Amino acid sequence: MREVELNISVIADNAIHWQDGSLYLLDQRQLPHREIFIQCRDASETAEAIQAMVVRGAPAIGITAAYGVVLAAALRMQEDRANWRKLIAADLQVLQASRPTAINLFWAINRLRQLIDRVDDGNALAEMLAEAQHIHQKDKSDNRKMGDYGAALIEQPTAVITHCNAGALATGGYGTALGVIRSGFAQGKIQRVYADETRPWMQGARLTAWELIRDDIPVSLIVEGAAAACMQGGNVGWVIVGSDRIAANGDVANKIGTYGLAVMARYHGLKFMVAAPTSTIDMQTPAGDQIPIEQRDYAEVLQCRGGRIAAQGSDAWNPVFDVTPADLVDAIVTEKGVVLKPDADKIASLMARR
Amino acid sequence: MREVELNISVIADNAIHWQDGSLYLLDQRQLPHREIFIQCRDASETAEAIQAMVVRGAPAIGITAAYGVVLAAALRMQEDRANWRKLIAADLQVLQASRPTAINLFWAINRLRQLIDRVDDGNALAEMLAEAQHIHQKDKSDNRKMGDYGAALIEQPTAVITHCNAGALATGGYGTALGVIRSGFAQGKIQRVYADETRPWMQGARLTAWELIRDDIPVSLIVEGAAAACMQGGNVGWVIVGSDRIAANGDVANKIGTYGLAVMARYHGLKFMVAAPTSTIDMQTPAGDQIPIEQRDYAEVLQCRGGRIAAQGSDAWNPVFDVTPADLVDAIVTEKGVVLKPDADKIASLMARR
Repeated sequence: MREVELNISVIADNAIHWQDGSLYLLDQRQLPHREIFIQCRDASETAEAIQAMVVRGAPAIGITAAYGVVLAAALRMQEDRANWRKLIAADLQVLQASRPTAINLFWAINRLRQLIDRVDDGNALAEMLAEAQHIHQKDKSDNRKMGDYGAALIEQPTAVITHCNAGALATGGYGTALGVIRSGFAQGKIQRVYADETRPWMQGARLTAWELIRDDIPVSLIVEGAAAACMQGGNVGWVIVGSDRIAANGDVANKIGTYGLAVMARYHGLKFMVAAPTSTIDMQTPAGDQIPIEQRDYAEVLQCRGGRIAAQGSDAWNPVFDVTPADLVDAIVTEKGVVLKPDADKIASLMARR
Repeated sequence: MREVELNISVIADNAIHWQDGSLYLLDQRQLPHREIFIQCRDASETAEAIQAMVVRGAPAIGITAAYGVVLAAALRMQEDRANWRKLIAADLQVLQASRPTAINLFWAINRLRQLIDRVDDGNALAEMLAEAQHIHQKDKSDNRKMGDYGAALIEQPTAVITHCNAGALATGGYGTALGVIRSGFAQGKIQRVYADETRPWMQGARLTAWELIRDDIPVSLIVEGAAAACMQGGNVGWVIVGSDRIAANGDVANKIGTYGLAVMARYHGLKFMVAAPTSTIDMQTPAGDQIPIEQRDYAEVLQCRGGRIAAQGSDAWNPVFDVTPADLVDAIVTEKGVVLKPDADKIASLMARR
C-alpha cells in the first residue's frame, strides 16, 4: 500500500477522500501520531486497506468498498470494454472477502452491483461514482439525523461511556455513536465522555479521543476494566455505541467489549443506546448467533505498539466482535427513527418505513 | 534502585529473596522480557520498590515491607544502639506510605512493630528477621491450603477466568487465585485458564501467563473486553481472583476490572471466588466504600510499553482498584477456611477461628 501526503485539511470528516480517479484513506492505524493517506488504485488495494484496518467502522467500510467497485469498473472497462460486467465479478468477490462481520460492506457492494446490472455502458462509470458519492454523503447526513434522534432520548445532563470508535472516522462523517454524542454535547445534555481505550487496537485512545479533543468535547480515557467502577460512581447515564451488524431481532454485533458494557449498564440501571444506519441492519440474519464473528490473529493481543507484551509461549483468544442480545438494548437509533426495546416486529416495521 | 543479577534460579516462588542482609526483588515491571532483581538495602529503597511496582500483589507487598522493617532496624541499631526503637518509627512511616490500598502492608508492619515493642535488644534483629521469614513462609503454606479449599469448591471440570496476577509473584509463593488454579488443575478440575491481560500494567499478559506457561497449565490471554463473550461461550464455570483488601462485611477490593467481572459472572450464572489470606481481611473497615482506592498517574493509561498511544491532549481516569460488593461474591477462600456468600457475621466468625 502506498502512502501519500494530500494537500487537504486532515479532519475526521475527510478520512475517506476521492480525488482524480483514486481513493485516499486516512491511515487509521497510524493515528494519532501520523496523519497520512493510503492511496487505493484498484479493488485489491482497497480490499487490502479494509483487511489491514487502514479504514474501519462498518459504515466507512461500506463507503470504501463502494469506491473500490468504481476503481474496479474503470480498470475492467480499460481492459475489455465489452466484457467489463463479467470481469468485475472477481473484483466484487475480492472486496466482499475483505472482512466478514460488517454488513455495510455487503450492502454497499450490492448497491453497486444492482447499478451495474441496469446502467448503460456510456454512463456507467459516472453513475457508479455518483452512487458511491451518494452513499458517502447520505451516510454523513443520516448521521446528523441520528445525532438529533439520539440526543432527544437523553433526558437530563449526564456523562456517557462509549466504546471503540463510532465516529466520523468510522463513517462518512460526523459519526453514529459520536454523532449522538456531538449532538448531545451541543445541546448541553452530555457533559463528559468516558472512552474505553478498546484493546487490542486502541481505537478509543487513538481515534475517539483524537476526534473529541478536536471538537472540545471533554473526554476521559479509561481501561475497559474501569467501566464498571465508572458506572458505580453514579454520574454516567448512558452507554452509547455503534454497530457492525444488527440482526433482524435487534441483536447487536459490535466491537468486542460492547456486550460486557451492556451487561454492566443493565446491572447499574443505566441506559444502553446503539446508533447505526439502517444499512447496518441485516434482515437476512434472524438472530445474533448467526452473525459471523471475525477472529483475528492472536498476535494482536500479545502485542501493543508493535512490540511484544506477553510471556513467550502465550496463546490468546481474539474475537473482534461480540453480540449483545436485544433485551439488553434500550434504544436502536437509525436515520429512519428510533426503536425502543427492539424486537423482530419493531425492527421489521422500522425497515418498512420510507 | 540498583539492578543485580543473582545466582539463583529465577522462579516465581523466588521473587522475594533475602540474602546476606539484603532484600532482592524480582523486577516485575520488566517481566517477562528480563529476569533481573532489584536490591533493597534500607526502608526507603524498599518503599520505592513497592511504590514503583517492582513488587506488587497484596501479600507480596506485606512480605516485602516486613523485610524492609528488618533492613531499617539493622541500620538504626548501627546509627544509635540506644535509640533505635524511636528512630525506626520514621522508617515504618515511609514503608506505610508506599501504597494505600493493600491492607497486608499495614498488617505486616504492625506485626513487626509489636515484636519491636516486646523483644530484647540482644535478640531483636535475629527475631525480626525470623518474623519476616515466618510471614513469608506461612503465606506460602497458607496458599497451598487455600488451593485445596478453593479447588474443592469446583464441582466439575471447567475453564476459569482470572484477572491481574494473584500468583506466586503476588505472594510468598504458589499464589492465592493462581494457587487455587494450580491445585484445581492438578486435580483435573480446571482445564483452561482465560487470563485477562489487565490493562494498564498488563499483569495478566506479563505475569500470569509467565507463571502458568512454566507450570504447563493451558492459558489463553484475552483483552478485558472479551471476558463477557468468553462467558457467553459457555465453557467457563468460575471467575477466580485475589484481593488487596476485604472489608468486614465481605466487600472485596481488587485490581480495577474485578468488579465488572463479578457483575458479568452473576449475569451468566457463573460462580465468583476470591482467594486471599486472612491478613487481607480488614476488620477495621466495615464496608467496601471505606477502602481507600489508589489513583495512579493517568499517563499509565495513555501509554503502553513505555510509549504514547493516546491522542495529544487526552485526559484519563486511572483508579487502580475497584470494590466488588459482597453480594456478588460466591466464596471467599482463606487459609482458615471458606466463607460462602460472605456477610459481616460470617467474616467475623471466620476471623474468630484459631
